[in-house]
Amino acid sequence: MDFEYDARTTELLGELGAFMDEFVYPAEPVLAAQLADPVRAPWSVPPVVGELRAAAKARGLWNLFFVDNHGLPGEPGAGLTNLQYAPLAELTGRSVLLAPPALNCAAPDTGNMELLAQFGSPEQRERWLRPLLDGTIRSAFAMTEPEVASSDATNITTRIERDGDEYVVNGRKWYITGAMNPDCGVFIVMGKTDPAAEPHRQQSMVLVPRDTPGVQVLRGMRVFGYPDEDHGGHAEILFEDVRVPAANLIGEEGGGFAIAQARLGPGRIHHCMRALGIAERALELTCRRVNSRVAFGRPLADQGVVQDWIAEARVRIEQARLLVLKTAWLMDTVGNRGAHTEIQAIKIVVPSAVEWILDKAVQAHGAAGVSQDTPLAQLWAGNRTLRLADGPDEVHKRSLARRELRKHR
Amino acid sequence: MDFEYDARTTELLGELGAFMDEFVYPAEPVLAAQLADPVRAPWSVPPVVGELRAAAKARGLWNLFFVDNHGLPGEPGAGLTNLQYAPLAELTGRSVLLAPPALNCAAPDTGNMELLAQFGSPEQRERWLRPLLDGTIRSAFAMTEPEVASSDATNITTRIERDGDEYVVNGRKWYITGAMNPDCGVFIVMGKTDPAAEPHRQQSMVLVPRDTPGVQVLRGMRVFGYPDEDHGGHAEILFEDVRVPAANLIGEEGGGFAIAQARLGPGRIHHCMRALGIAERALELTCRRVNSRVAFGRPLADQGVVQDWIAEARVRIEQARLLVLKTAWLMDTVGNRGAHTEIQAIKIVVPSAVEWILDKAVQAHGAAGVSQDTPLAQLWAGNRTLRLADGPDEVHKRSLARRELRKHR
Amino acid sequence: MDFEYDARTTELLGELGAFMDEFVYPAEPVLAAQLADPVRAPWSVPPVVGELRAAAKARGLWNLFFVDNHGLPGEPGAGLTNLQYAPLAELTGRSVLLAPPALNCAAPDTGNMELLAQFGSPEQRERWLRPLLDGTIRSAFAMTEPEVASSDATNITTRIERDGDEYVVNGRKWYITGAMNPDCGVFIVMGKTDPAAEPHRQQSMVLVPRDTPGVQVLRGMRVFGYPDEDHGGHAEILFEDVRVPAANLIGEEGGGFAIAQARLGPGRIHHCMRALGIAERALELTCRRVNSRVAFGRPLADQGVVQDWIAEARVRIEQARLLVLKTAWLMDTVGNRGAHTEIQAIKIVVPSAVEWILDKAVQAHGAAGVSQDTPLAQLWAGNRTLRLADGPDEVHKRSLARRELRKHR
Amino acid sequence: MDFEYDARTTELLGELGAFMDEFVYPAEPVLAAQLADPVRAPWSVPPVVGELRAAAKARGLWNLFFVDNHGLPGEPGAGLTNLQYAPLAELTGRSVLLAPPALNCAAPDTGNMELLAQFGSPEQRERWLRPLLDGTIRSAFAMTEPEVASSDATNITTRIERDGDEYVVNGRKWYITGAMNPDCGVFIVMGKTDPAAEPHRQQSMVLVPRDTPGVQVLRGMRVFGYPDEDHGGHAEILFEDVRVPAANLIGEEGGGFAIAQARLGPGRIHHCMRALGIAERALELTCRRVNSRVAFGRPLADQGVVQDWIAEARVRIEQARLLVLKTAWLMDTVGNRGAHTEIQAIKIVVPSAVEWILDKAVQAHGAAGVSQDTPLAQLWAGNRTLRLADGPDEVHKRSLARRELRKHR
Repeated sequence: MDFEYDARTTELLGELGAFMDEFVYPAEPVLAAQLADPVRAPWSVPPVVGELRAAAKARGLWNLFFVDNHGLPGEPGAGLTNLQYAPLAELTGRSVLLAPPALNCAAPDTGNMELLAQFGSPEQRERWLRPLLDGTIRSAFAMTEPEVASSDATNITTRIERDGDEYVVNGRKWYITGAMNPDCGVFIVMGKTDPAAEPHRQQSMVLVPRDTPGVQVLRGMRVFGYPDEDHGGHAEILFEDVRVPAANLIGEEGGGFAIAQARLGPGRIHHCMRALGIAERALELTCRRVNSRVAFGRPLADQGVVQDWIAEARVRIEQARLLVLKTAWLMDTVGNRGAHTEIQAIKIVVPSAVEWILDKAVQAHGAAGVSQDTPLAQLWAGNRTLRLADGPDEVHKRSLARRELRKHR
Repeated sequence: MDFEYDARTTELLGELGAFMDEFVYPAEPVLAAQLADPVRAPWSVPPVVGELRAAAKARGLWNLFFVDNHGLPGEPGAGLTNLQYAPLAELTGRSVLLAPPALNCAAPDTGNMELLAQFGSPEQRERWLRPLLDGTIRSAFAMTEPEVASSDATNITTRIERDGDEYVVNGRKWYITGAMNPDCGVFIVMGKTDPAAEPHRQQSMVLVPRDTPGVQVLRGMRVFGYPDEDHGGHAEILFEDVRVPAANLIGEEGGGFAIAQARLGPGRIHHCMRALGIAERALELTCRRVNSRVAFGRPLADQGVVQDWIAEARVRIEQARLLVLKTAWLMDTVGNRGAHTEIQAIKIVVPSAVEWILDKAVQAHGAAGVSQDTPLAQLWAGNRTLRLADGPDEVHKRSLARRELRKHR
Repeated sequence: MDFEYDARTTELLGELGAFMDEFVYPAEPVLAAQLADPVRAPWSVPPVVGELRAAAKARGLWNLFFVDNHGLPGEPGAGLTNLQYAPLAELTGRSVLLAPPALNCAAPDTGNMELLAQFGSPEQRERWLRPLLDGTIRSAFAMTEPEVASSDATNITTRIERDGDEYVVNGRKWYITGAMNPDCGVFIVMGKTDPAAEPHRQQSMVLVPRDTPGVQVLRGMRVFGYPDEDHGGHAEILFEDVRVPAANLIGEEGGGFAIAQARLGPGRIHHCMRALGIAERALELTCRRVNSRVAFGRPLADQGVVQDWIAEARVRIEQARLLVLKTAWLMDTVGNRGAHTEIQAIKIVVPSAVEWILDKAVQAHGAAGVSQDTPLAQLWAGNRTLRLADGPDEVHKRSLARRELRKHR
Repeated sequence: MDFEYDARTTELLGELGAFMDEFVYPAEPVLAAQLADPVRAPWSVPPVVGELRAAAKARGLWNLFFVDNHGLPGEPGAGLTNLQYAPLAELTGRSVLLAPPALNCAAPDTGNMELLAQFGSPEQRERWLRPLLDGTIRSAFAMTEPEVASSDATNITTRIERDGDEYVVNGRKWYITGAMNPDCGVFIVMGKTDPAAEPHRQQSMVLVPRDTPGVQVLRGMRVFGYPDEDHGGHAEILFEDVRVPAANLIGEEGGGFAIAQARLGPGRIHHCMRALGIAERALELTCRRVNSRVAFGRPLADQGVVQDWIAEARVRIEQARLLVLKTAWLMDTVGNRGAHTEIQAIKIVVPSAVEWILDKAVQAHGAAGVSQDTPLAQLWAGNRTLRLADGPDEVHKRSLARRELRKHR
């Protein structure tokens, strides 16, 4: 057992840290200004993001998340393990609107790239994965539906029906992250191909180009008031008799549930890694704030309750990080399925811990904390969704508990 | 000791309930549509609010909050006690964007009206209080500043300097609720007239018409992404050499701190009363949602954890309401100062309880809970600010604790 | 609505307060010394308790709990309402080992007396209720069993079988409070007379004198290490072919479940009333401690975290008390069944609140807090059992939630 | 970074696990019976403990805690690192009354042995350390005082005055663990040699044999009702003109504070390691209980709230364990001082997490959970003291927060 990062990680942390200092943090006010520009094309990605992407790619800080090349030619990823990637992803979380897209390591593209690498046909890889890895297009993952509890995938109502050489898609999805962005080229859509099959073999996934007739991107859904315009928001999409070639099926018919499960593991740990960076940033901002603000004759930092928050924040971060790192190590050593319990554990624990820390950061900042002048409120809102996205906490807890209970029957 | 509402309260609850059913709840989607109208004048109050105000006034559901007439001619208020008003205010909280303004019972006008009734000169009452009571103008209260911890009023930096027959105001304020609204006619501004006086005699308040030269309403501050455009938002305002007649001073020089304290008691309890209505609405929405949503083969309502939330919500509401009612009763019987501890207690306890309930309501609604399709996320955000507005919880807890500690020295 | 105690309550609070000051608090160290006396007869009630009982009876501070006389001759109770009794019971909670038995208002006798008054035959009243009201015997209530989840009364396994003119009792009970006391004259035993009946008609109750052949009082059960020797502890009892006359049946065969339900309402609120007095005592002790202890150069009372505890304690007590009082008022005005939701609510909320306060009191006292030199640890342990006795919190929450859910179906 | 135990650890875990299965768990009911034996000599250690010690020593499972030999001849420890010892100590925590003393790895002897190895003179080592390592005597550490907040060592009032060739000790100590045991041979006593020195140079430590004239072991202090008779309890001790040779001074005059600090680091992590084993045992007992108990027609394990507890327990344990292991690794790699923040972090987080788990275990067990028939209530009480022993949580949080705040000044 050894708690030290290896040399490769340490080296990359140095490089990424320098990139954050030189490019990313200075770009934060630029992003805010570009987003506030009244003549900006709706939902277009602000130019500063593209500039950062170019700079990161030039430095080789690109596709670090891509742990398994799955035999792809050219070895597009950096060849890292999950354990090596974890602290890097955390570091990008410190500027979570900018750094992950800058490195082509932002959701949902990351999950979609992994999915295509693992399950896509050679043609699908060539047509969709390649430009995603190159960063020339973006993508979205269309699973959640407004009318049903989507945490239970068997509830999904969107239909994907075979009709000759085509699949016909009908259904309504929402909170499809990134899909408002006009540059988003393709959706991976989950639907039912065979409602009569056994529950976990009813679903399939197809690739639907965004400009396919019948696709109606209706509106941007909000997250506690935020449209999240920086990255293409969260769309409500109506699919009406949308026809795609049969070759757009990913994997096999009835394989949708299994693919979704395979996609979710890495996606969840990536969220958790970044969330730790958010927490570190929030804690740093809190410390700076309370060291400098004075009330009733002394800095807020002298208040016992404020100190209690800071100590709690530190110990929660330390614990959560170690569990994330161990989970990454398990994924590397025993595989994503072997790390199932730990992936659920971090999915349960990290968003809650980070939410608590952000809440205290908001409180320490007073009105500024809920405003657009600090990143805290928006970070809070984004993090809050992690408690219900990809399965709400309650589903994961129940599942984890049942495995624990089976040990002692 | 008797826990039954009196006849007058019960009668008014019936009338107000009918008004809510007939006018207010049906107006909720109208408000949403009017706010979303792309050709709306920025920050203008949506027409449906005016219609509701007319309807409420016609029914005598007007200025119910105005407990003490302070000898005003025409007895503008309904002559209620705080205890009688409390359940009515709670009921308006069930549709908190619409019902309080409909009844001319919305912050910050309510506090400003009370302030002017209690401390205003006859001329000030005639010029500003009268139209506020009539509902022909709106107002704002400018106290919080961006650069200092405003929970400690001695920190305030805005200057109000006497210069001949005028006062000259210089300073920066933010989160001035209602001030983005072009119909907002007047600001009550807190600033320092004598920085050399003892700490609680340095501050004074002056009335500043919104169109006075030197007043710059800079921008609308956000609350977790929400501009709160329905009621005039929360402005950042710069006062540069703003000159008002000396007669615009409220009360006496050095009296600002005492006036602010007097204003805050009723303001805090009003927030708490309405927050209980928010909680009841959220709990009702949660019950409806979990009764109808099915996951893993049964309604969410069958989940033990969901039942735990609902039971907790109910017992927290019941407890908090009783404390609010007792506080109102104390204000009626021993006065606002005599109810100081209880006012602090509800300020501490109600927003936290309601936040917890709203959080669970959001979680029960999944993605819909964070969206613009249910009121929950916006209600959460608005309620969250109550934990830091009018003094953060931590300040009130410390103050309350010190009085408790003095009992047993 | 009115939050003032009536004149009778205020007068009795004065009399009881004087009795506490003059007799009860001074008796606390006497009780401790008598309990520690190595030559004391095992499980005998310390003499000081008898002395206090005599003093209380002489002052008319006796059987105050006995709200409903049920037509008993001589009107043994004080004729109070639940609402009038509530603050008196709270006051006895401040010295919970001494004051409730001193006033003949201690569990389980109170519940047993009410049960006999309501459901007992004239003969049962004469033989058992009369001496209980006079205070010449004590009693116990034997319901909980070690082998089954007794929160579900249908689980009960003890058999009560009719055999001619007798009932024959076989079964094992535990945590039968008061039953180790040799002066405990009678047990009310719950068991099944007809396991084939519908679930809530299987149970009956019989009176079993403690000296009946076949009754084996096996041992005193502990509560976090405490034997609770002051009041007869908590016995494990084996009933082997215990025969009692058929006339010892309370009410009718199959009526046991209904009688138990009727008994539990008042029992639960009495526990909650007293628990509030425990909390007030703990808060007072905490304030005194932190005002006087110095660490790192200043009193603990100056620590922000300690102040946070004290403020939280105060607001939790205030809220909980109001809910208890409202529940008492409901019991008086709409009856125990009409107050069902509120009785569950206080059962859920009061023990948890008091536990929290006691935990902080322990922490503020350091090692003394867990020791025998302050009452805090023992009070904590006793209060902790309230979260699982008479139905664990989880059962009450589920039940309360289901009624709430039905409102919005 | 690597999360796998090394080969030596894995091997020892196997050996220790076998020892637990074969010797320790079967001895648990034996211990209970011997403690309940009415003719047992007061405070004598039950014979089964001695038998287990002999068995463990014979297998080389002895002094595993003794990480640093400090050049002692014969290398009495097992030569483990803290990181290797951690999971072994956790395993002993599963039977915390028996396994730690069986392996000669119980507090306070462990801390005292380390202290003597590091700071003792050759003579002191020979006279006291040798028999402690051999297990022929036991020891106690006398620091806490009843009259002052001992978390602030500068408060200590016990005097240690030089008089010729002797030191004279006067003072009162309490909660001196192990000191009621007649076999406890020696106390390490902390007191002030120079009250006029600067605050952290006033204290010194001396060795006081238990039978020295003037030492009065007054009584056993309780922990929530438990005397903890299995290991010598927690004594209150009066030192009146107790004279020991000057050679009994440990280290130098004025060095007491520094020695205490050095002693506490390992002591705290040992407590945390064992507490994790307690938590695992409690979780296992809980799972077994809820899998087998039926209420309202189904096992408790099917209740959503119970599942929530179990999931929470698992994720809290996983996180806490990783932080403990990392702390052990830091102690091994950068030393105890370098691991200061992490030692504080685990001191804050582990007892609270374990308390939460034990509380839920108690609740799941109903009355059995608070009784003497499961270990849960006693484990809860023992663990509760960790939140206030060796410095209450609040002191550690404040200290940790201040270091965090200094990073961002």
